Amino acid sequence: MAETIIPQEILDTYFPKTSDLPIEQDDKRKETLLAQIRHRVELVNFWFIPPGSKVLEIGCGQGDTTLVLAAQVGEDGHVDAVDPGDPDYGSPWTLSQAQSQLKSGPLGHRITFHHAFPILFLESLFSPLSSSSTTQDSKPYTHIILSHSSFYFSSPSLFPQLISYITSLSSPKTTSPTSNPITKQTQICIAEWDLSATSPAQFPHLLAIMLQAVSEGFKKEGEEGDGNVRCVRSAKRMREVMRRKGWKVEREMVKDGSGLEDGLWEVGNVGRRKEGELERVEAVEGKENKEGNVLEMMYDVLDLSLGNVEGGAKGVEAMGVWVASFAREDF
Amino acid sequence: MAETIIPQEILDTYFPKTSDLPIEQDDKRKETLLAQIRHRVELVNFWFIPPGSKVLEIGCGQGDTTLVLAAQVGEDGHVDAVDPGDPDYGSPWTLSQAQSQLKSGPLGHRITFHHAFPILFLESLFSPLSSSSTTQDSKPYTHIILSHSSFYFSSPSLFPQLISYITSLSSPKTTSPTSNPITKQTQICIAEWDLSATSPAQFPHLLAIMLQAVSEGFKKEGEEGDGNVRCVRSAKRMREVMRRKGWKVEREMVKDGSGLEDGLWEVGNVGRRKEGELERVEAVEGKENKEGNVLEMMYDVLDLSLGNVEGGAKGVEAMGVWVASFAREDF
Repeated sequence: MAETIIPQEILDTYFPKTSDLPIEQDDKRKETLLAQIRHRVELVNFWFIPPGSKVLEIGCGQGDTTLVLAAQVGEDGHVDAVDPGDPDYGSPWTLSQAQSQLKSGPLGHRITFHHAFPILFLESLFSPLSSSSTTQDSKPYTHIILSHSSFYFSSPSLFPQLISYITSLSSPKTTSPTSNPITKQTQICIAEWDLSATSPAQFPHLLAIMLQAVSEGFKKEGEEGDGNVRCVRSAKRMREVMRRKGWKVEREMVKDGSGLEDGLWEVGNVGRRKEGELERVEAVEGKENKEGNVLEMMYDVLDLSLGNVEGGAKGVEAMGVWVASFAREDF
Repeated sequence: MAETIIPQEILDTYFPKTSDLPIEQDDKRKETLLAQIRHRVELVNFWFIPPGSKVLEIGCGQGDTTLVLAAQVGEDGHVDAVDPGDPDYGSPWTLSQAQSQLKSGPLGHRITFHHAFPILFLESLFSPLSSSSTTQDSKPYTHIILSHSSFYFSSPSLFPQLISYITSLSSPKTTSPTSNPITKQTQICIAEWDLSATSPAQFPHLLAIMLQAVSEGFKKEGEEGDGNVRCVRSAKRMREVMRRKGWKVEREMVKDGSGLEDGLWEVGNVGRRKEGELERVEAVEGKENKEGNVLEMMYDVLDLSLGNVEGGAKGVEAMGVWVASFAREDF
């Protein structure tokens, strides 16, 4: 239905060999990037996004999915990609470096990056000050995408708040001085880790995610987490939120995560924070330190889980991914 | 070295068929009990407890290990078995029912049950009011046993406090009006789940234990947990506590947990508490409910893990068990 997306072309266009990496390391780099691009292509294909679509991507990060979405929507489509993240955050490229790189490529004109909180961005669309040039005329969004972004939300209330707000915009009762950016035809498309480790090689990925969620859960109100994953919600709970707000599953699947290195990266993220975090919680006042004990337990369980993976930390595999698209219930 | 302990004899003596269970269910009951008895026999054999030993068992619960210890110490030995648990706690037998049953059997005279907190019990040994009839004359303890009891401690500070107190008693500087119940020859013997799930069938056991520990970690100071597992510490951390207090590993192993149904029971325990616990945390004040979200996640991860076990919840297997004995460093 759309132009065929060739992962290799995306790789060659956006991630050409620029440094003097030894050939072996460059092959490894290519393999890693290709797996990520292929994964995003599969997500986007599953969501059925026809050419000419106008897409809002929430939590775009470095633009891994954004780029594939831009290829998918074709010359007549557009992607508004929103992320509240610090432009200097991220590795090996920061958010702003990665986004600039995509903007300067052949698909860049199909993408507008917005540095904003999602709900505030949606509100800004109604402001008379908002420039329509940032959002490809006044066409409503055909799809709203959350691709591996829900776990990064800073608090559990944000996801239901966001869905509530989108729902209110898609309601026929909504009147607006400008044309409505969301209609009852707008679909919501989600991809997120499925939290089901089917083998000992996937268990460390799950544990690294759980550890970060538990650590975040212990933070006091107003205490800012510096973690990566911050608020974990299973597919079942996301489905529940969607249903309560008036959205029904159109299609869903669990996609194999093999080949993706996210499990390995997540274990690395957690490992780098371990020492600092245990020092921080051990410095907490009071003779009982239940929080410190729980975090120690989780770090130890993660370490032990690596002992059950062939090849140790390097053999960690990514979990499966829940992929779904939702449409408004008839009203 | 000791009289040979025959698990089948223990089963026939202490757990005879008393009800009109159908034969098939009775076979299942026997199989369950035999696996538990065999497990305890292996633990006790590993700890090398010669006939004539005087053993202090801390956290004896219903007496599963106590009985095997009583067989092991022989006619000249004795077991003081201490537990602070509510006499009415436990299923299918309460603590007091199970302990009475053991007392009335052929090994009962070798056991004294004490309903007390471990440190208070140790302190009471120095009291002029303490009756020596409860502790088999004034012989010191040759072994102090913590068999699957450390995870039930109500707070993380109790284990190190207990070891500190035992250490102070075993120090040659300790002077006491009565003879010292602990000497530098006293060994400390520990058995506890090793927190390493080597297969998807073991994940649910580990997750059910982690879930309870995290739930307990969220409890405010003074808030009483009604959970089973309450304070989880890995073998590595227990080894660290022991080393800091002046104890060295004499022997240790990881014992296979296959055949034990503890994983299945633990998943059942958690399942029964799920609804009440989620209701409780969801009633917490404040618009952000990070605690509720984390517990929901953990319950969901546990449910999902059962989907990866052949036979579902019934196929859950127990993790391995870390078994160790410690002796005082030379001083």
